Amino acid sequence: MTAYFPEVPKIQYGGPKSRNPLEFKHYNPDETVGEKTMKEHLRFSVVYWHTFSNPLSDPFGAGTAQRPWDDGSNSVANAQRKAKAAFEFFEKIGAPFYAFHDRDVAPEGRTLKESHANLDEVVKVLKDEQARTGVNLLWGTANLFSNPRYMHGAATSPNFDVFAFAAAQVKKAMEVTLDLGGAGYTFWGGREGYSTLLNTDMKRELDHLGRFLHMAVDYKKQIGFNGAFYIEPKPKEPTKHQYDSDAAACLNFLRTYDLLPHFKLNLETNHATLAGHEMMHEMEAAIGSGALGSIDANTGDPLLGWDTDQFPTNIYLTAQCMLCILQMGGFSTGGVNFDAKVRRESFEPIDLFYAHIGGMDAFARGLKIAQAILDDGRWQDFIKNRYASWDCALGHRVESRQASFSDLEAYILPKGDAARNVSGRQEMLENLFNDFI
Amino acid sequence: MTAYFPEVPKIQYGGPKSRNPLEFKHYNPDETVGEKTMKEHLRFSVVYWHTFSNPLSDPFGAGTAQRPWDDGSNSVANAQRKAKAAFEFFEKIGAPFYAFHDRDVAPEGRTLKESHANLDEVVKVLKDEQARTGVNLLWGTANLFSNPRYMHGAATSPNFDVFAFAAAQVKKAMEVTLDLGGAGYTFWGGREGYSTLLNTDMKRELDHLGRFLHMAVDYKKQIGFNGAFYIEPKPKEPTKHQYDSDAAACLNFLRTYDLLPHFKLNLETNHATLAGHEMMHEMEAAIGSGALGSIDANTGDPLLGWDTDQFPTNIYLTAQCMLCILQMGGFSTGGVNFDAKVRRESFEPIDLFYAHIGGMDAFARGLKIAQAILDDGRWQDFIKNRYASWDCALGHRVESRQASFSDLEAYILPKGDAARNVSGRQEMLENLFNDFI
Amino acid sequence: MTAYFPEVPKIQYGGPKSRNPLEFKHYNPDETVGEKTMKEHLRFSVVYWHTFSNPLSDPFGAGTAQRPWDDGSNSVANAQRKAKAAFEFFEKIGAPFYAFHDRDVAPEGRTLKESHANLDEVVKVLKDEQARTGVNLLWGTANLFSNPRYMHGAATSPNFDVFAFAAAQVKKAMEVTLDLGGAGYTFWGGREGYSTLLNTDMKRELDHLGRFLHMAVDYKKQIGFNGAFYIEPKPKEPTKHQYDSDAAACLNFLRTYDLLPHFKLNLETNHATLAGHEMMHEMEAAIGSGALGSIDANTGDPLLGWDTDQFPTNIYLTAQCMLCILQMGGFSTGGVNFDAKVRRESFEPIDLFYAHIGGMDAFARGLKIAQAILDDGRWQDFIKNRYASWDCALGHRVESRQASFSDLEAYILPKGDAARNVSGRQEMLENLFNDFI
Amino acid sequence: MTAYFPEVPKIQYGGPKSRNPLEFKHYNPDETVGEKTMKEHLRFSVVYWHTFSNPLSDPFGAGTAQRPWDDGSNSVANAQRKAKAAFEFFEKIGAPFYAFHDRDVAPEGRTLKESHANLDEVVKVLKDEQARTGVNLLWGTANLFSNPRYMHGAATSPNFDVFAFAAAQVKKAMEVTLDLGGAGYTFWGGREGYSTLLNTDMKRELDHLGRFLHMAVDYKKQIGFNGAFYIEPKPKEPTKHQYDSDAAACLNFLRTYDLLPHFKLNLETNHATLAGHEMMHEMEAAIGSGALGSIDANTGDPLLGWDTDQFPTNIYLTAQCMLCILQMGGFSTGGVNFDAKVRRESFEPIDLFYAHIGGMDAFARGLKIAQAILDDGRWQDFIKNRYASWDCALGHRVESRQASFSDLEAYILPKGDAARNVSGRQEMLENLFNDFI
Ligand SMILES: [Co+2]
Ligand SMILES: [Co+2]
Ligand SMILES: [Co+2]
Ligand SMILES: [Co+2]
Ligand SMILES: [Co+2]
Ligand SMILES: [Co+2]
Ligand SMILES: [Co+2]
Ligand SMILES: [Co+2]
Repeated sequence: MTAYFPEVPKIQYGGPKSRNPLEFKHYNPDETVGEKTMKEHLRFSVVYWHTFSNPLSDPFGAGTAQRPWDDGSNSVANAQRKAKAAFEFFEKIGAPFYAFHDRDVAPEGRTLKESHANLDEVVKVLKDEQARTGVNLLWGTANLFSNPRYMHGAATSPNFDVFAFAAAQVKKAMEVTLDLGGAGYTFWGGREGYSTLLNTDMKRELDHLGRFLHMAVDYKKQIGFNGAFYIEPKPKEPTKHQYDSDAAACLNFLRTYDLLPHFKLNLETNHATLAGHEMMHEMEAAIGSGALGSIDANTGDPLLGWDTDQFPTNIYLTAQCMLCILQMGGFSTGGVNFDAKVRRESFEPIDLFYAHIGGMDAFARGLKIAQAILDDGRWQDFIKNRYASWDCALGHRVESRQASFSDLEAYILPKGDAARNVSGRQEMLENLFNDFI
Repeated sequence: MTAYFPEVPKIQYGGPKSRNPLEFKHYNPDETVGEKTMKEHLRFSVVYWHTFSNPLSDPFGAGTAQRPWDDGSNSVANAQRKAKAAFEFFEKIGAPFYAFHDRDVAPEGRTLKESHANLDEVVKVLKDEQARTGVNLLWGTANLFSNPRYMHGAATSPNFDVFAFAAAQVKKAMEVTLDLGGAGYTFWGGREGYSTLLNTDMKRELDHLGRFLHMAVDYKKQIGFNGAFYIEPKPKEPTKHQYDSDAAACLNFLRTYDLLPHFKLNLETNHATLAGHEMMHEMEAAIGSGALGSIDANTGDPLLGWDTDQFPTNIYLTAQCMLCILQMGGFSTGGVNFDAKVRRESFEPIDLFYAHIGGMDAFARGLKIAQAILDDGRWQDFIKNRYASWDCALGHRVESRQASFSDLEAYILPKGDAARNVSGRQEMLENLFNDFI
Repeated sequence: MTAYFPEVPKIQYGGPKSRNPLEFKHYNPDETVGEKTMKEHLRFSVVYWHTFSNPLSDPFGAGTAQRPWDDGSNSVANAQRKAKAAFEFFEKIGAPFYAFHDRDVAPEGRTLKESHANLDEVVKVLKDEQARTGVNLLWGTANLFSNPRYMHGAATSPNFDVFAFAAAQVKKAMEVTLDLGGAGYTFWGGREGYSTLLNTDMKRELDHLGRFLHMAVDYKKQIGFNGAFYIEPKPKEPTKHQYDSDAAACLNFLRTYDLLPHFKLNLETNHATLAGHEMMHEMEAAIGSGALGSIDANTGDPLLGWDTDQFPTNIYLTAQCMLCILQMGGFSTGGVNFDAKVRRESFEPIDLFYAHIGGMDAFARGLKIAQAILDDGRWQDFIKNRYASWDCALGHRVESRQASFSDLEAYILPKGDAARNVSGRQEMLENLFNDFI
Repeated sequence: MTAYFPEVPKIQYGGPKSRNPLEFKHYNPDETVGEKTMKEHLRFSVVYWHTFSNPLSDPFGAGTAQRPWDDGSNSVANAQRKAKAAFEFFEKIGAPFYAFHDRDVAPEGRTLKESHANLDEVVKVLKDEQARTGVNLLWGTANLFSNPRYMHGAATSPNFDVFAFAAAQVKKAMEVTLDLGGAGYTFWGGREGYSTLLNTDMKRELDHLGRFLHMAVDYKKQIGFNGAFYIEPKPKEPTKHQYDSDAAACLNFLRTYDLLPHFKLNLETNHATLAGHEMMHEMEAAIGSGALGSIDANTGDPLLGWDTDQFPTNIYLTAQCMLCILQMGGFSTGGVNFDAKVRRESFEPIDLFYAHIGGMDAFARGLKIAQAILDDGRWQDFIKNRYASWDCALGHRVESRQASFSDLEAYILPKGDAARNVSGRQEMLENLFNDFI
């Protein structure tokens, strides 16, 4: 059980005064915040791809990651060993969940059949390790973007065979997710978009994507998978423009193809900002449609134009995320999934611990700050009171669809002008927020 | 009739060799391209706000515009004189349409009633001038963003009176648009958004916006206005984030509130790029939902983060716009509306002519290029052939909703892998496009 | 003395537990941090332009600011009354400094002579108020951007008269700054740039700017002004591209024209981020050339492409700023100048207090955090140790210019490869930083 | 000689009417434009890295490139075969130059000595092929960014050994460049920057970079290399922030370390736009310091935040580049170097031809357009006349450093205000530019 990180103990809560970089300063899993423990609120999840399968290369340089348990081979045995290292990590960091793509955990074979077989061999180990540790699968997914086969898209590929291959791959990934008791399944359309509109029939591609997801919904019912289906928006990278570019684009697509009842969104901070939105905007947009399912907790660099997937350490950000989560009543199937990678220069195994400790502490602080703001009450009261003028007879008639333009004209024309506005008080509210930082 | 631009003749077509900056080099209104004249295809429209009501100030400096017909007063007489100058311009430039906000054409009064009265006085002149010149109204709209009353929004204001005021203002603007025979009416939600999420109930605000637009639809029927209703997306500026941020956000909103049958989109290039999309992307997204109504023809500076609303002179851009328009079968109620302003440093009246001539010539070239590409056929054939693999039995079953994941697995598993991809040929297609530039 | 903000007392320090929005929670002027009081460290300054002369308009809407002391007239009496309101504000907020443009404090006249006279009349009041309150001038400057005269630039205008006018205006502003005992004088080249390269001779314009600044240096000596000269970089807005686009561009310009000995930089956060740099980057770039003079303390919105000039409330940002300032040994002539404006929706006088209290508290926290990090020592030690391999004989020879490529080849060729790297530990350092937040 | 692209003939000039995608429509090497042939003007260069060593992977997917001559091994024999394929391509496309990094052409060995030996073996082939074909080396360079050794920088690494290794690598690359008769040598500091300021001593790193380049200058003299030294700016990617971020930053650095006499700039379009500048801006900035050496001809996507290195096909861009080049008197050692890569989806060998044909034709058109604009004369005359007011006695005194602020005040004060401005005519100039498109 300590074969892979022998020098690292299970990470303990040391409290805010601790200067031990391998202790939590704020995340204390069984401590109650509001009506639940921190563990129940946050439902932390570690991602297999960045933490165990990413060599830390970049477009200008080779991978740097030191992963002593990984012999670099494409063998099932290597994958199984990696799985054990991963679960040792999950246990030591104290994450109750993890998430993976099919190709993160098992090597792709020469044929689809061989890939399925490889996956089955590793899933056995995952299942054993889940049983041994109590760590569960937050969501599974299929990698439909790395193989050159998917260069032109998966469900939106102009190559029909690729569509079929993707369907078979998702089918298998759903089966595996069910088998592992996964709480959800995620669709990220990394290649569902275009490199240039000059060679693309956007409408036909979207129709194909709609068909693909309907088949997934049908298959979900067929096999009795009761977990959640998520779509994860991202505007660009690897393509010039992905179809699932942001929450609004996903919701519009789901509404267009009658899929909204079957899907929620898995929102990622870095994807939100690449699309020009704050994470809080995307979360509120999803919540407004009852469609916020889970979050990929990371951060981008606001001065860089690509997905840096950095670990979230800014407590303003984590507090905003947790305000949204608390206000919607907490996660049901979803969680705080660290879709984040250590920097290419942070290539040692110990950096994986520093990174997750930092992210978990930041979210623990965010949770406590958010709860304190809600307990304080000034903030919600301010917002509520701001709309108080709507609590009049005509306001209620408007809200209940009983008023017309003529009614409103009849009301306002004699007044001459609207009652004066009051300040939006942005600066005061930012100060109020700082009271809790 | 030549009182306001005495030194400028009616702009004539001089042909590509002309070096006269006051002649069209490419826009020849009665020349046929494909099956229509250029005039019928392009349906050019001049905007009142930038061309006749914009002082050319910026956040760091006072207005510079020299407009000899404008005495700077807030009087109806001044507004009427401005209207006559505007129509002289429309005639000389040869635009068959114009567009305006209520507050562009007539001064706001101390009360709403007075504002209505002022508007009526100017509308008389507009009506006369339309009759005299044959220039028609492409669309009308109400300015719900300049007055401090609208600082927190119009239909989404937390101040109920402001909602009512906005309703009355739109009601009047719709009546005026009907009276002037307008082909459409546009909603641009410049203040429908937020400065900070910290003081905002996004869901409640969107519900109010939905109610507002339903009342507009009801009133449209009531008064028998048969023109088109447009929503114009823009992601930000003046607010930090507007609700109608891009085509997908608008379509999602319209679907959510059951408004899609009643609205089309008026897309603007600079708004598209501020939202992170090419204009062509937004156009195809709208066309895919049968919702492209009209375009605001301008361009932004890709290196600047605000709405520069520059005149479009890049023929790659205009050719892409016209390709979309031709492929959707041309405009019905909409047109090419120059929502563009001369630079603050181009402050002389003559610059208004140079600017529109440049934009009209650029769109004329764009039209001819687009028609030539379609006539050539290589481009559409390339795209069509790219999806040829879907023309198999199983492909058709997928497209007609008769196939399942299991069917697809049964097809692809024995094959082992998908048939090989072929190149996307982006570079070759860019070269092909250049064959027509 | 309480004529203009009768309802607001002098802002007191209430401590971190205070919930009074009109008390400081962290800024306690006479509290010692390290070896100086907070007041001495921070040298807070209020800007006249945003706080007393900005109507809070934006490109899509009229001004909203309620300023009861301002009758809206362009009179000297109005300007003098505004000056008294400003000093009441400076006193109540407890700022030891302020900053202004000539045209903020006094109205422009019909002639330059009249403008000079107007300025003299208001300067008398400023001088009296400085004497009465002990509030001093951090820096003065001339507004060379608002008047249409400057549309094409001031020192870089193609219109020679405009260059001459700007020279006379700066001459006067320098005299006034000297008269008021100003600690510095700032040059912000808001119109020194271009709208399009198509009409611009960049080299000739830069030569003119170089000449302009040399004349300013000469005149400084002539009149015995011993304060600092600052250049404030900004990349764009109002022009498409300003010449003083960032710290490197300014330093390069100053070096090119032999001006570096005479100028330091006044760096603004929002200008840094618009140029693609973190504020800390710009500060270190300037410090590396001994050229950091003062800072304009504000923040931008990383998702917006224009200068939002928001009040800084993010304590990560303020801690980074103060780390740089402490490490360079503190300000000499410069200070923390709030070049920030309340939002257009925060239009009431009381919002000016909330905004400054928030900014001052955020910088007080930043100061305490920075001092604590330096006292802790782990951070600086980490950086120092990171370069420890350079402390070898050959490393010292390289640093002292005594080694050649051949020496280095002779050293490394036999080794075969470099000694292994160690992790950059970005995540651990971000966690360490969070220990102090 | 046709072993590697058997199906492709030498690319011929077919003229503008040609519809053969494997013919030039505009590039006619021996055709005279102005006083030189197109070949002499444009000095086209093909880059080895993108065109022969790039597998076309991206951060989300494996390489796609089909390169039949490449057996995927890391052997010298494979590298030599690749060199022959490259020269066949250079010949068939008709490029007089190529450019390479040491590691593009030969595999890195287990030791530096082995790497040197590998390089020598391939350089023999390059030399033979140069002799056989007449194709010459535009510039050589060393890859100081791909190997994990360089993760923290090369000349700016905190690891002294890495600095030494980089020095030895550059020394060898300079020797090889000399041996091959290279016209220049380029320094691109892809890892000279930082991932976070939290672990970085920027000043010390820049000092090391200054020392490094001085040693390169010394060694250049020592070996008698008379080619040009170039620095290539890029603001970010792979690091968060590179030191050589744009032309101004490079020039400032060179001036700071007394290196300006020894270096020119190699400017790349995509790097310019990532830094927030138009390519034309960067070119004029460099020309103003006599420091424009060569250009990396490509384009970025203005809506994407990373270096897409696309082939340039936009003739507005190429015309602007060639206007700058013609106005500075043409290239001396530099050229139009296609630092551009085919899209990941354009993975077939034939796409390399389409891509280069498109880029060469676009630059040929750009050259002809630029020459036509200069021959026409209206554009230069407009700019020149715009500054005509400086041609007065006092203007000349200012320009010759003989005037003071007092002189200018004495001139302008009696006038009261500046003479009126005239329009900047941006729209008219954009139309004028379009006359030649
Ligand atoms: Co994610
Ligand atoms: Co991501
Ligand atoms: Co518009
Ligand atoms: Co616009
Ligand atoms: Co400033
Ligand atoms: Co600013
Ligand atoms: Co390059
Ligand atoms: Co590049």
